[in-house]
Amino acid sequence: MATTPVTVFAKWKVKAGNMPVVLKLLKELHAASVKEEGNLFYQVHQSRTDNNTLILTEGYTDEVSQQAHINSAHFKKLAIDQIIPLLDEREVTLTSPIEV
Amino acid sequence: MATTPVTVFAKWKVKAGNMPVVLKLLKELHAASVKEEGNLFYQVHQSRTDNNTLILTEGYTDEVSQQAHINSAHFKKLAIDQIIPLLDEREVTLTSPIEV
Repeated sequence: MATTPVTVFAKWKVKAGNMPVVLKLLKELHAASVKEEGNLFYQVHQSRTDNNTLILTEGYTDEVSQQAHINSAHFKKLAIDQIIPLLDEREVTLTSPIEV
Repeated sequence: MATTPVTVFAKWKVKAGNMPVVLKLLKELHAASVKEEGNLFYQVHQSRTDNNTLILTEGYTDEVSQQAHINSAHFKKLAIDQIIPLLDEREVTLTSPIEV
């Protein structure tokens, strides 16, 4: 069964004042995530019009690898337990790259 | 003055039934956009949970190149005049990639 890569877009609105802590935790999460077997890339972007908005783009070889990421110990310890409570909003979209 | 690359995230919700036409126009817009001097990349993604949602990621060497893109004849003719009227929603975020 051919698998297709998954690209995840996560848009985070960080609560005012929490950005330094979020970036510190994100550094740790990024370092652990890029070591995952199915990770293709993990990039962080900051909005040019709202410093409290980050957009993460993460690539995985397939859905199994993406699921392994969100079930990992580091995702639980860093994202679920520490980063997400520091956010005002979090919007995650799972996509597939398409050729046009 | 050091310039920083710009990454654009454009989230399109396509009106039901318009996806084939949007993809046809997007093919033409993509082909013209990647030829622009300041273009770094132009990728299209389709949501895995809502087929009518596309996320475009576009990279530009700097803000001047990104502005040149939205002021180009092909952006006017294809995006403004034809694609955007076929969308229910359009959310564009200009970002800078950051190291964590």
